[in-house]
Amino acid sequence: MSDPSSSEIADRHALDLRRQIAAGEVSASEVTQAFLDRVAAREAEVHAFAWLDPERALGEAGARDDQRREGWPLGALHGIPVAVKDIIDTAGVPTENGTPLDAGRIPDRDAYVVSALRTAGAVLLGKTVTTELGAMHPRATRNPHHTGHTPGGSSSGSAAAVAAHMTPLAIGTQTNGSVIRPASFCGIVGYKPSYGVIPRTGILPQARPLDTVGVFARSVGDAAMLVDALAGRDDGDPVAGTPPTHLIDAALTEPDEAPVFAFVRSPAWDNAEPATKSAIEALAAELGPCCREVELPPHFAMAMSAHTQIALAGIALHYGRYYDRDRDALSQEMREAIDRGRTFKAVDYLGALDFRDKLRADIGGLLGTHEVILTPAAPGEAPEGLGSTGNPAFNTLWSLLGMPAISLPLLTGPRGLPVGAQLVARRGDDAGLLRAAAWLMRRSGRG
Amino acid sequence: MSDPSSSEIADRHALDLRRQIAAGEVSASEVTQAFLDRVAAREAEVHAFAWLDPERALGEAGARDDQRREGWPLGALHGIPVAVKDIIDTAGVPTENGTPLDAGRIPDRDAYVVSALRTAGAVLLGKTVTTELGAMHPRATRNPHHTGHTPGGSSSGSAAAVAAHMTPLAIGTQTNGSVIRPASFCGIVGYKPSYGVIPRTGILPQARPLDTVGVFARSVGDAAMLVDALAGRDDGDPVAGTPPTHLIDAALTEPDEAPVFAFVRSPAWDNAEPATKSAIEALAAELGPCCREVELPPHFAMAMSAHTQIALAGIALHYGRYYDRDRDALSQEMREAIDRGRTFKAVDYLGALDFRDKLRADIGGLLGTHEVILTPAAPGEAPEGLGSTGNPAFNTLWSLLGMPAISLPLLTGPRGLPVGAQLVARRGDDAGLLRAAAWLMRRSGRG
Repeated sequence: MSDPSSSEIADRHALDLRRQIAAGEVSASEVTQAFLDRVAAREAEVHAFAWLDPERALGEAGARDDQRREGWPLGALHGIPVAVKDIIDTAGVPTENGTPLDAGRIPDRDAYVVSALRTAGAVLLGKTVTTELGAMHPRATRNPHHTGHTPGGSSSGSAAAVAAHMTPLAIGTQTNGSVIRPASFCGIVGYKPSYGVIPRTGILPQARPLDTVGVFARSVGDAAMLVDALAGRDDGDPVAGTPPTHLIDAALTEPDEAPVFAFVRSPAWDNAEPATKSAIEALAAELGPCCREVELPPHFAMAMSAHTQIALAGIALHYGRYYDRDRDALSQEMREAIDRGRTFKAVDYLGALDFRDKLRADIGGLLGTHEVILTPAAPGEAPEGLGSTGNPAFNTLWSLLGMPAISLPLLTGPRGLPVGAQLVARRGDDAGLLRAAAWLMRRSGRG
Repeated sequence: MSDPSSSEIADRHALDLRRQIAAGEVSASEVTQAFLDRVAAREAEVHAFAWLDPERALGEAGARDDQRREGWPLGALHGIPVAVKDIIDTAGVPTENGTPLDAGRIPDRDAYVVSALRTAGAVLLGKTVTTELGAMHPRATRNPHHTGHTPGGSSSGSAAAVAAHMTPLAIGTQTNGSVIRPASFCGIVGYKPSYGVIPRTGILPQARPLDTVGVFARSVGDAAMLVDALAGRDDGDPVAGTPPTHLIDAALTEPDEAPVFAFVRSPAWDNAEPATKSAIEALAAELGPCCREVELPPHFAMAMSAHTQIALAGIALHYGRYYDRDRDALSQEMREAIDRGRTFKAVDYLGALDFRDKLRADIGGLLGTHEVILTPAAPGEAPEGLGSTGNPAFNTLWSLLGMPAISLPLLTGPRGLPVGAQLVARRGDDAGLLRAAAWLMRRSGRG
């Protein structure tokens, strides 16, 4: 076996690295060093990391190599570097929530997902830049494909770090479009599992009925492997239900029959750029008999205002303490969101939850049992400039309904920047979603 | 075997009747007729029923007898009459929700619990009087022990019908104190299982985070048998969790060791009448080493206002349509509750839910694993007059926390009217609750 160059290692997928580490073909230390080399090369222009301690990461990797040599059983992510959004608590490591009001904050306890990473043998590579409090206001991260463009948000650094091959895997969160949109803009796989699959204990809350942990990777299999390690139950997050298992099998096994797709323009359609419209329509057409068009009834357009009710009430609840402590340290957008959320009435909030239940029942009746929705992941390419993280219009409905969604880097915009094709499945059918996603990637020569 | 008189049959417990029907010692028709005879004797003064059709009930009973003769497998409640609160939908049978605004309303579909009764082979004896919309404003029912006194509410008719031996079993609901309080006032067993045990599909909602189906019976075993038949899961009620099973075994099996009790005065203590205080203190003292006193920290007193936030916001949400249609047809109390609930802010509502989560964690730390709380079920005897259903202060905290509770007819007030001793267990430990309740009833010679 030839000695692999650092650069070549950082281009491999996590699944391959996991196998190679287990077989002794490459060490966790070499893998971690390879990604740290890529960080050294790209981070100055991308600004993906809020915290990074190369010595510490290499120390963790060395310990993983020792464990392997000593014959310990290896975890599902043994030796694989993972980067974690900076609203997710890491014991002894800064977690600053994207706000100066939490500068220097060092939690005592790991979030559930960080404990799960450690149990699985992963290496914590670093903490990634989040927008302010995981909401609207951007921070320093730039799009690796064109540093004059936003990477999207709120999981800006996680998406950018994976896209720049600075880490093979990263964790983010989505309340509106914070995983799927940056994945689309950065040309990688972003996967938001069904609401409730991954416990949120130890993660800054934004709006409990919506907040969902998601992952970034460069393949469907890698994303599945990471979610398999993070799915579970925890007393600290009572909504977490029965987690799916062996999503990796769904991603890696060739299905006996082609998946069935429903092309849905969705109420967000008018937000899409012409090139996005024609690209997704072309993809739907190519799928031929595998894909029918489904039109959502007009009342689905009201999902946006229901989402706003729930999201801004949550922001007012959870971030009001920052506002009351030092409102000038918050962005104008955040101050306005809190002001507005504080005016919302409980009956309207509960009405929005009831309306969501109605939409859930309605969409259940519109889709076939294993039918997977095909729709854009974002209106178009990453917008130019860093003043906004772009428009989440194509994500709001699916976040509201808690349906699993994945962005696949299958489209290209007029400037040559990536645009994601989004697949969405019934809540709970994460396996069906990943089966269809992997099939579509293979079919497009991207598997 | 001698021919049992109708009157003697109506004094038996449901568990005995179930066994005797199965053995052919008495028929479902005879049992149903016996309770209908008791209805004929008492209903004119008690007013427990909102709807009653003796021919229809006897028809159902006759069909149960036919099934038994034909050798069908018998359900868990085969041939047992059950009365159902009139906010619970019954297909083809009026369900008027205690308001003239729903006069003549006949649902198309059975509520989940009514389907479960039919599956178990029960006989639907009738629909019982509820307060207006299952809330505060009383209707016609009187206390069978003294018809000048309230039976409590909102499950007024269900409690009174069981207490007057007009039915062996009845179903009610509790959002604040609507099962435990009327059971206390009527001198019977009222059991509110853990939140989520019994699906609420097809029941008039009041406040979803609180609404709980409960049951009335004359013994702990009978109550357990009914909840065993009603516990389950249903897509229409997503909060329903994993139901307990075989509660009947917990109620009927003598435990190897005496249960351990925690005497809790609770924030409601100042509401209790002197006689209630001394009676429950005496019971706690009698239990000796089985019972220690646990004092709740002062912040538990804020449970009341958290409950008010959640309950009135729910009332405003669910009953606002009645108000908007014809506010003059609602009681003054209901109009005020809706007016007030409509002013509540979403952030305060969500803050109340968060505070509830904190109280849940706190009470978890205060109680031993299988320790069962002993506390009054109501401040005292049923108040005189029918203008109010009494004070739910001793029920609010446990309803807020979703903990299983049971009222046992173990105390007597200064006028000779019954007062309940209430037991409360950890959420999910329904088996532990019933084990302790049955033990305490046997120990008091009431088993």
